[in-house]
Amino acid sequence: MQLNTLPIGIFDSGVGGLTVYRALHERLPNERFIYLGDTARVPYGTKSMTTVERYAIENSLFLASRGIKMLVVACNTASALALPAIRKAVGFDVAGVIGPGGRKAVEITKDKQKARIGVIATEATVASNAYFEAIRRASETAEICQGACPLFVPLAEENWVNEPETASIAARYLAEIKTFAPDALVLGCTHYPILKDVIQQTVGANVKLVDSGEATADEVLHLLRDKGLENPNAVESSRKLCDDLDHFYVTDAADRFARVAERFLGVTPSKLEAIEVYGADRLTKI
Amino acid sequence: MQLNTLPIGIFDSGVGGLTVYRALHERLPNERFIYLGDTARVPYGTKSMTTVERYAIENSLFLASRGIKMLVVACNTASALALPAIRKAVGFDVAGVIGPGGRKAVEITKDKQKARIGVIATEATVASNAYFEAIRRASETAEICQGACPLFVPLAEENWVNEPETASIAARYLAEIKTFAPDALVLGCTHYPILKDVIQQTVGANVKLVDSGEATADEVLHLLRDKGLENPNAVESSRKLCDDLDHFYVTDAADRFARVAERFLGVTPSKLEAIEVYGADRLTKI
Repeated sequence: MQLNTLPIGIFDSGVGGLTVYRALHERLPNERFIYLGDTARVPYGTKSMTTVERYAIENSLFLASRGIKMLVVACNTASALALPAIRKAVGFDVAGVIGPGGRKAVEITKDKQKARIGVIATEATVASNAYFEAIRRASETAEICQGACPLFVPLAEENWVNEPETASIAARYLAEIKTFAPDALVLGCTHYPILKDVIQQTVGANVKLVDSGEATADEVLHLLRDKGLENPNAVESSRKLCDDLDHFYVTDAADRFARVAERFLGVTPSKLEAIEVYGADRLTKI
Repeated sequence: MQLNTLPIGIFDSGVGGLTVYRALHERLPNERFIYLGDTARVPYGTKSMTTVERYAIENSLFLASRGIKMLVVACNTASALALPAIRKAVGFDVAGVIGPGGRKAVEITKDKQKARIGVIATEATVASNAYFEAIRRASETAEICQGACPLFVPLAEENWVNEPETASIAARYLAEIKTFAPDALVLGCTHYPILKDVIQQTVGANVKLVDSGEATADEVLHLLRDKGLENPNAVESSRKLCDDLDHFYVTDAADRFARVAERFLGVTPSKLEAIEVYGADRLTKI
């Protein structure tokens, strides 16, 4: 089998990465995807670097064992803490979401030299300073204001998108960033786009929100071209989100994932399996 | 070594079980404890029975490998979903928190035949009906109203005990239970005692709150006596919470656990180690 006919692997700590899958699917209609949601161990954003690295490597080795040509780390926390460890563990190209998100934020500002960028993310991602460094690589003089929003993950998982408590919590978390008055605000966690409306209302309509997932999909498209890894075989024109060309794996209950996937994507995956991920030496079906 | 000089094992999905440890420590000054907080895989309450059973057995086998005479499952979700599986996996007595909490709730009502009991717990615990069955075993005619409060766990972990958003979320979650007007309300998750004040204010001062951890500690005391498993050696009078007679293990970062332990107990564990728990065959230090 040729390398470029293999699917692209994607992993996330849970369901949030489905927004990255959708963005990739839209831009790359000829590609197949294998998605792994580590729903048995979600969340990652409150855990230590040692643990996040271990989980990320186990997930990557699982996807490697299914045969993939490239890996997209959809989870911001894993991208921020574990990219070097993942790259050391696997032999294919690995794309994270932090670099693309940071660059995109600088690109859309009017004046790159005087860019003012806000970043909201999990505690672990903020503490890692990964977005800070990615933004500074794109603009040495950018001013940056970061904030952790730990309750946004459970609020998004509960689908509390219109509740007044969510607006009130957002106002509290985003107060410093609002005062900072950024040009762009990076949504540095795959869960946050679910709360896009309330975040936009809180910071004001003139702040451009950056969805790292979409920025990453753009970069993966270029990476595939540069490496000559695009699938040469056109797939049928009937290609749809979550059809049987894409394979979904979860580490906890598949039925719960299917319900949330339907809410996120409007459709349930055709191929969805629950598995255990313990590193490639201990892969077993449950 | 005599069986009755061995310590008592306690496990929880994370830090919440420290409230159960404190209650046991107060009632059993001659006993030593080994506590395991599965902080790398917390929370359990949103996960499936298969996953919770697997984690609970791995935790139990880890504690078994350290040498214990009895196991207390401090986590309500693990008690509700995994007690039969744990008992099958280990050779010693196992106490959960559901039975004691349910019995205590019936005991403190004025009229057991007309007892009205509220229960708040995680989604998984409510769906298991374990509290419903435990209460009905204590009173066949008790009327029961259950409610899941998924955001209480992250709110407690963030220590948002006095925030207006917490009061507002509590009012929303507890509306049905308040209308039901119970005699007693079971706090069916180890995190919920942290939000005791706001819960009491929401349901009204006449509703008696039942902390399953305290009820469990009372039962463990009786169980030790009945089985002749009390430690015959009196420990020094200087015995304190978290002194070096008790050993604490966590599966994620020890420093984070130490900080939260200090907030919960006013003191940091003397003996605290981070370990990996993969079932007894794969125990490794990290």
